[in-house]
Amino acid sequence: MKNAVQAIMPEKLFSRERVAEGTLVRAGGVTIGGREIVVMAGPCAVEDREQLLGAAQAVKNAGAAVLRGGAFKPRTSPYSFQGLGEEGLKMLAEVRDITGLPVITEVMDPRQVVLVADYADILQIGTRNMQNYTLLREVAGAGKPVLLKRGQSATIEEWLLAAEYILAAGNSQVILCERGIRGFDPILRNTLDLASVAVVKQMTHLPVIVDPSHAVGKWHYVPAMARAAVAAGADGLLIEVHPCPERALCDGQQSLTPEHFALLMGQLQHVARAVGRTLSL
Amino acid sequence: MKNAVQAIMPEKLFSRERVAEGTLVRAGGVTIGGREIVVMAGPCAVEDREQLLGAAQAVKNAGAAVLRGGAFKPRTSPYSFQGLGEEGLKMLAEVRDITGLPVITEVMDPRQVVLVADYADILQIGTRNMQNYTLLREVAGAGKPVLLKRGQSATIEEWLLAAEYILAAGNSQVILCERGIRGFDPILRNTLDLASVAVVKQMTHLPVIVDPSHAVGKWHYVPAMARAAVAAGADGLLIEVHPCPERALCDGQQSLTPEHFALLMGQLQHVARAVGRTLSL
Amino acid sequence: MKNAVQAIMPEKLFSRERVAEGTLVRAGGVTIGGREIVVMAGPCAVEDREQLLGAAQAVKNAGAAVLRGGAFKPRTSPYSFQGLGEEGLKMLAEVRDITGLPVITEVMDPRQVVLVADYADILQIGTRNMQNYTLLREVAGAGKPVLLKRGQSATIEEWLLAAEYILAAGNSQVILCERGIRGFDPILRNTLDLASVAVVKQMTHLPVIVDPSHAVGKWHYVPAMARAAVAAGADGLLIEVHPCPERALCDGQQSLTPEHFALLMGQLQHVARAVGRTLSL
Amino acid sequence: MKNAVQAIMPEKLFSRERVAEGTLVRAGGVTIGGREIVVMAGPCAVEDREQLLGAAQAVKNAGAAVLRGGAFKPRTSPYSFQGLGEEGLKMLAEVRDITGLPVITEVMDPRQVVLVADYADILQIGTRNMQNYTLLREVAGAGKPVLLKRGQSATIEEWLLAAEYILAAGNSQVILCERGIRGFDPILRNTLDLASVAVVKQMTHLPVIVDPSHAVGKWHYVPAMARAAVAAGADGLLIEVHPCPERALCDGQQSLTPEHFALLMGQLQHVARAVGRTLSL
Repeated sequence: MKNAVQAIMPEKLFSRERVAEGTLVRAGGVTIGGREIVVMAGPCAVEDREQLLGAAQAVKNAGAAVLRGGAFKPRTSPYSFQGLGEEGLKMLAEVRDITGLPVITEVMDPRQVVLVADYADILQIGTRNMQNYTLLREVAGAGKPVLLKRGQSATIEEWLLAAEYILAAGNSQVILCERGIRGFDPILRNTLDLASVAVVKQMTHLPVIVDPSHAVGKWHYVPAMARAAVAAGADGLLIEVHPCPERALCDGQQSLTPEHFALLMGQLQHVARAVGRTLSL
Repeated sequence: MKNAVQAIMPEKLFSRERVAEGTLVRAGGVTIGGREIVVMAGPCAVEDREQLLGAAQAVKNAGAAVLRGGAFKPRTSPYSFQGLGEEGLKMLAEVRDITGLPVITEVMDPRQVVLVADYADILQIGTRNMQNYTLLREVAGAGKPVLLKRGQSATIEEWLLAAEYILAAGNSQVILCERGIRGFDPILRNTLDLASVAVVKQMTHLPVIVDPSHAVGKWHYVPAMARAAVAAGADGLLIEVHPCPERALCDGQQSLTPEHFALLMGQLQHVARAVGRTLSL
Repeated sequence: MKNAVQAIMPEKLFSRERVAEGTLVRAGGVTIGGREIVVMAGPCAVEDREQLLGAAQAVKNAGAAVLRGGAFKPRTSPYSFQGLGEEGLKMLAEVRDITGLPVITEVMDPRQVVLVADYADILQIGTRNMQNYTLLREVAGAGKPVLLKRGQSATIEEWLLAAEYILAAGNSQVILCERGIRGFDPILRNTLDLASVAVVKQMTHLPVIVDPSHAVGKWHYVPAMARAAVAAGADGLLIEVHPCPERALCDGQQSLTPEHFALLMGQLQHVARAVGRTLSL
Repeated sequence: MKNAVQAIMPEKLFSRERVAEGTLVRAGGVTIGGREIVVMAGPCAVEDREQLLGAAQAVKNAGAAVLRGGAFKPRTSPYSFQGLGEEGLKMLAEVRDITGLPVITEVMDPRQVVLVADYADILQIGTRNMQNYTLLREVAGAGKPVLLKRGQSATIEEWLLAAEYILAAGNSQVILCERGIRGFDPILRNTLDLASVAVVKQMTHLPVIVDPSHAVGKWHYVPAMARAAVAAGADGLLIEVHPCPERALCDGQQSLTPEHFALLMGQLQHVARAVGRTLSL
C-alpha cells in the first residue's frame, strides 16, 4: 500500500516552478501577489455596526484595500468573547456594500464554511487551525480565496504542506500569512519570523503577507514590523485597527488607532517604492 | 458587553481544588487517574485486521489496558496515508470484542464525532487540534471520555483552557496527554516536557498521561522516557507498538516491537512500585 | 588549509565506542558513572560559614555524596550578589575537611582556574560558558574532573563538541549535566530535556547527570524531576538545598529545605533500585 | 547583605531616559547611532592577506564603512579552523592602513583583550560569550567601543543586562547586535528576531545593528533581511562578504560575493531614505 501512496504523489503544487511568474489571487477587485502591496486592515473582532463602519471608513481613507474583522473568534478561554457569529458576518457584508472594501474573515467550523463564504471575499484559516485538515479540505471547495496563517510552531515545510491540502483539493487561490511563531521572550507575544517570507517566496509561487499585529502583540511595535515586512518582500499586510483600542473586546493592546494607521500607510508607501513595489493611498 | 462576559466567568472547572481527590476517568472497565498506571498501546495507524489483532494481543499479553490505533490520521502531507476511516473503526471494535481491551482512537472532524464515538471507548484529540474549539465542543457532547493531547507549542495554561472548553460543555471525563513540544534539536522529533506533568498535577484534578513515542520519534529512546514519565507522576502512558515496525505505514521508526514492549512493561512495573503506584501485568 | 584541518580531525573522543564500558569519573573518593547514583547537593551560593556547614551536614546526613556551592556566581544582572570569591572557596575547603564531602564549584574566569582547582574537587562550567572555548581549554589542563552544563539553547551535538574541547586538550574526566533548555512556558524557568539523557548515554561514554533545580526553577517540582531523571538513566543529580531557602541570596525559590531533600533521597533510593542502580543513604 | 546589594543598585545605565537623544558610538572616524546607516562588512574569518585586502577593497568600494574579519574564531568543533590569531590581527591592521576602513574583530579570551584592542577599532563579543561576564568586564576597560551580540537564547532583558555589565564598568561605547535566536526550522540557521530591534530602540539609548548573515545562514536570504533590518530601524548592519565564498574556511554558504554585496548596498540606500536615514555609497 505504501508504494501505491508514493506512486500517486505528484510534484508539489505549491512549488515555485509550477507558476514561475507567481500566482495572483483575486478577491473583490483586489489583486494579491502583484506589484501592488495590499493592506488588509480592521478590527480584531466585529463588535457592532458603528465600530465596524468607523474602522472600515478609516482604513479605506488611509489606503487599505481589504477590510478584516472576525465574526467567529478562536479564543484561548471558553469564557472570552467568542464573536458575534452570523450577525457579525452580516455587518461585514453591509459595510462592504457601503465602503466597497472586500472582506476577509475567519472560519473555524467546516460546517460553517458555506455560510461564511456567502458573506466573505476571502476565507481566513487561523494559526490554531493550520493543520486542521478537515477544515482545509472544506474551504478548498468553497470557491473563495483562502488566507492560510502559519501555525505557531509550524516549520516552513509544514506550512507549505498545509497549503498543499487546499491546492490538492482544487483551489489555487491561496495566500500565505506569516504571523509570528512561538518564542521565549516575555515582552513580545510571538516572534515574527520575517526570514520565512524570503524563504517562502523562493519555494512557492503563492503570495505571502505578514500580520505584524498578532506577532508583536503591542501596537507600539507594529509600524516597524510592517515596514520591515514590506522591505523583506511581503506582498501585503494584515493589520489590526480599532477606532478605540482601549475599548476593544479583543486584542486592543495590539490595535493601531486610525491616526497611527494613516501615519504608517504613508511610511509604507515610501518603503514599497524603495523595493520596487507600489502602494496606492 | 465586556463586563457581562466577565460576570459569567466561573472559577475554572479544571482547578485542582474543585475535585481534591482527583478525577477518575472510566472507560470500558478501566479507570484512569487512580493508583494504577494505565498503559494504552498499539499501532499508530490501523492498517489491516491482522496487524491490529496481532498488536492488540501482544500488548494485552504484556499488560496494556487500552488499545490505541488511528483510523483517521492527521498527516502533514496530503499525499501520506490518511487512515482507513470507518473501516478502521470497525476493525478496532471487532478487536475490542475479541481481546476485551477498550479502544482509544482519534477524531478530527466534528461531523464524525458521533460515528467515532459509536466505535471508540475514548476519543482522542490530537496535538494539531488542541485549539480546534469547534471539535472540542463537539466531543464534549458525545458521552465518551476525551483524551486531549497538548499542542506542540501550547503553554500549560493554554492546554488547561482547552480542557476547560470540554469541561464547560458538560463533559468531566477528560484525560490530559503530554506528547512533547517543539524543540530545536534535530535528533529528537519533539522535546518531551515531563515537568509539565508535575505542574499539571498540581494545577488540575484531571488525570495526565504521557506519549513518549511521538515525543522522541525514535523507538530506542521510548523506554527511558516511559520510565521517567511514571517516575514523574504520570497516570498512564500512550505507546506505539507495531508487530513489524519496519513495515508500518506511519511512524514505524518510533514503534516498539512486541518484544521490546513486553520488556518495558516489566521495567515500568518496578518504577510504578517505587513511586507508590501499581501496574498489573 | 582546509584539507590540512580535515586531515587531522580524529574520530570524536566522546564517541560511545571509544570506551564501551563507560568512563568513570573519580573525585575525592566518589565515582561518577558507575552503578551508584551520585547526588551532589548544597546551596546555590556560598553565603557564610554557618549556612554552608549547615547545608553540608544536612545533605551528607541525607545521603549526598558531593557538596555543591558557588563562590563565583554568574548573575544576569551586574548588581546581583556575585559570590564571595576566594573567601567562599576557603569555606568550601574547610567544610570538606569537616564533612568529608568532596566539593564541586563553578569557575568562570580562565585566570582563576588554578585558584579554583586548588580548592575544588570538581570544576563546574556553567550553562552560560558551555561554548566559552577559552575556559574549556583552561579547565582541561587543571588536573581535576570537569562538570560541563549544557548551554541553554545548545543542541546535543554542540554540547558533545564542547566536551570534545576538554577531551581533546587531554582531560578525560568529563561529566555532562543536563540543566534545562530555553522554553516558552512562563511557569517554568527552563524546559528539562530528559530525553537528552537517553540520547547522550547512547552517543557517548561520558557520565551524565541532571540538575532539576535550575531546570524548573521552583522547588515544588524538583522531586518529580529528580525521580524522573534517575528513571531516565542519569548517573547522578545536582540539587540545590538551603538551610533556609527564603533567606537565600540566590535562587531561594528553587532550593529544597533539608527536610524535603531527605524525603526526596528516600524516594530516589526506590527509583534507583527499580532501574537497577544503587543509592546509598 | 541582600539589602546592601539592593541599596547600591542604580537605575539601569542602559535605560532610554538616560540619554534621550541616543548614544553615538565613534570608531575610527565612523559614527554609529546617528542618522547614517553604518554597514560593517567583510569575511567571516581572516584567511590570508590577499583574501582580506580583496574583501576590504570590495566592501569599501560598495560603501561599507567598517571592515569585519575574525582572527580568533569561536568554532563549535575543536577541529575546525580556529582563526589565524595575532597574525590575523596584523593583517587587519595593515588592511585598515591601506583602505582607511576601521576594523571590528572578535575577542574571546580576557587575557587577549589588550592585544586585540591594540589592533582593532571595535571589539566584538560573540553570541556564545554574551553572558561571559569575565570577558564583558575586561573589554569594558580596554578603551575601545564594544559590539555585543545577542546570545542565541537570550531574552531582551538578559541582553540589555549583559550590556549593563560593560556600562557599569565604565565604558559607555556599546553597540548591540541582533544576530538571530535559536529556532526550530531546519531551513534557516537561526530565527532573526527583528522585533527585538524595535523593542530595544525603545528601551535603550544604545545603537542597535543587525547581522543577517549569521541569522539566516544562507547568502540567498541575506539581502531581504538586510533591507528589513534597515526598515525596522536598525542603525547598521554586519554582513559577511567573501571574494570567493565557495573557498571560504568558515561560513562560506552565508557570505555574499562582492557583486551581490554591491547590489544590496544600492537597495539599502533606497530603503534607508524611505525611513528617513542616509547611507553613503
